[in-house]
Amino acid sequence: MFDRIVVCGVGLIGGSFALALKQAGQVRTVVGVGRRRETLETALALGVIDELATDWSVALKGADLLLLAMPVGQMASVMAAAAPYLEPQTLVTDAGSTKSDVFEALYTHCGHRLNVAVPSHPIAGAEKSGPSAAQADLFVGKRVVLTPLPENQPEAVARVRQAWESCGAAVSEMSPQDHDRVFAAVSHLPHLLAFGLVHELQGRGNAEQLFSFAASGFRDFTRIAGSHPEMWRDICVANRHALLAELDAYLTELAYLRALLMQGDGKALERLFTEASDARNAWAEKYLK
Amino acid sequence: MFDRIVVCGVGLIGGSFALALKQAGQVRTVVGVGRRRETLETALALGVIDELATDWSVALKGADLLLLAMPVGQMASVMAAAAPYLEPQTLVTDAGSTKSDVFEALYTHCGHRLNVAVPSHPIAGAEKSGPSAAQADLFVGKRVVLTPLPENQPEAVARVRQAWESCGAAVSEMSPQDHDRVFAAVSHLPHLLAFGLVHELQGRGNAEQLFSFAASGFRDFTRIAGSHPEMWRDICVANRHALLAELDAYLTELAYLRALLMQGDGKALERLFTEASDARNAWAEKYLK
Repeated sequence: MFDRIVVCGVGLIGGSFALALKQAGQVRTVVGVGRRRETLETALALGVIDELATDWSVALKGADLLLLAMPVGQMASVMAAAAPYLEPQTLVTDAGSTKSDVFEALYTHCGHRLNVAVPSHPIAGAEKSGPSAAQADLFVGKRVVLTPLPENQPEAVARVRQAWESCGAAVSEMSPQDHDRVFAAVSHLPHLLAFGLVHELQGRGNAEQLFSFAASGFRDFTRIAGSHPEMWRDICVANRHALLAELDAYLTELAYLRALLMQGDGKALERLFTEASDARNAWAEKYLK
Repeated sequence: MFDRIVVCGVGLIGGSFALALKQAGQVRTVVGVGRRRETLETALALGVIDELATDWSVALKGADLLLLAMPVGQMASVMAAAAPYLEPQTLVTDAGSTKSDVFEALYTHCGHRLNVAVPSHPIAGAEKSGPSAAQADLFVGKRVVLTPLPENQPEAVARVRQAWESCGAAVSEMSPQDHDRVFAAVSHLPHLLAFGLVHELQGRGNAEQLFSFAASGFRDFTRIAGSHPEMWRDICVANRHALLAELDAYLTELAYLRALLMQGDGKALERLFTEASDARNAWAEKYLK
């Protein structure tokens, strides 16, 4: 499928994409690009990439595809740096968790390559990071959302789709605005809430005591509070409008719950918990193996 | 250790206590009591209990220990019903997730047995329920908190402690007020927040679309929203004062996060996420195997 691909950001997502395509026999050479030479050298030593490059003109020479897999806050500056060296055949895609900002950065910096620039978002858990966390089967059975541009060539969209499908993913398409609203609700807000809970508790005088009695409910609820702070900073800033709307909806829900607690209204609490529990169990039944 | 114990509520917690003591060879006969005959018969068929009783006078005849393992909302009425038939040697304990209310119910209904009534709270995940979820090793390596009464005989406290230790648990002691504050923070609030998030999303017109893109972060964050609605109604009502204090502290945190999002303050967001992530990872390092 590809002779040469370039992956910018060789961590969990970029590294797993490289390993998955290699394992599927869909790529000959993977070139790694990134901010830290040390990380690139680790990825090279682990066989995640085949070459490392520090110069975009070298990296992109003859490249069939460029995957941008850095934290989303770097999208615009990386695109600006890479854009002059994109060859006409070089497909561009990304792994950003937000899409409206990627959309905007592409229009600003890659105007001459909009026909082959197809934004994508692989939905894969990322509480571990770095090239050593990369695994060839990370995307197997996971969803990838493409948010194609109106300017995209159909063949470019099809090839990016095939690349993710070669990694084992189920690909669907959505507008970038819909994408950002959906993921604000089911991903970005839960991350913000988990970070907030742990932050609030860890600042207390009796934090040690509290943490010593935390059990499996706390463990699972806060797992995502162990996520990569810079990555989540960028997601929250990039998607802050959709995220604020979700946070406000949630604050309304909490105000309602607060009123029920104040009144000691067990009947209404039980009804609400039952609706939530039924919905959660139906979701688990349908989507978890 | 015990010839005959009575377990009221033969679900996950009560059933597991029975199985664990049997496996440890610490009890000869387990008598099950409960609201639903069908549940008791299931427990009998599964070997979780040895006898079922529908009459407290029969159940408590010659009993060494009574474990109250129903939802906490039933504590007072069950104590009132059982109290007249408690024999002088019958230890009383419970498995309630809240303690101030158990404390109060004991003073109200079991005034003549305060010397042998030792409240306890096993910290064991409970998103599954019923006797079929019971398992002999549920409490192995888990914590159990005792909140002894000033009136307790030291030997009664020691025997209740030994019973939980025979189940494999690590036992500690705390005042009921401290207990209720600690668990409002690390258990009751996370449950309320998870129920609230799923409830808020499931009522939307595009709930199906949202749920179809929910991934592992959502899965873990909302696992506890699948918990037993009645049990959590009772916990939230019984512990509503401590829970409201925790909810208000959390709402203050969310107001701060909201302000950071409004301002797009990536620097402060990253600092907060880093503190949370460091604390979560240190907790996992220390407490998770």
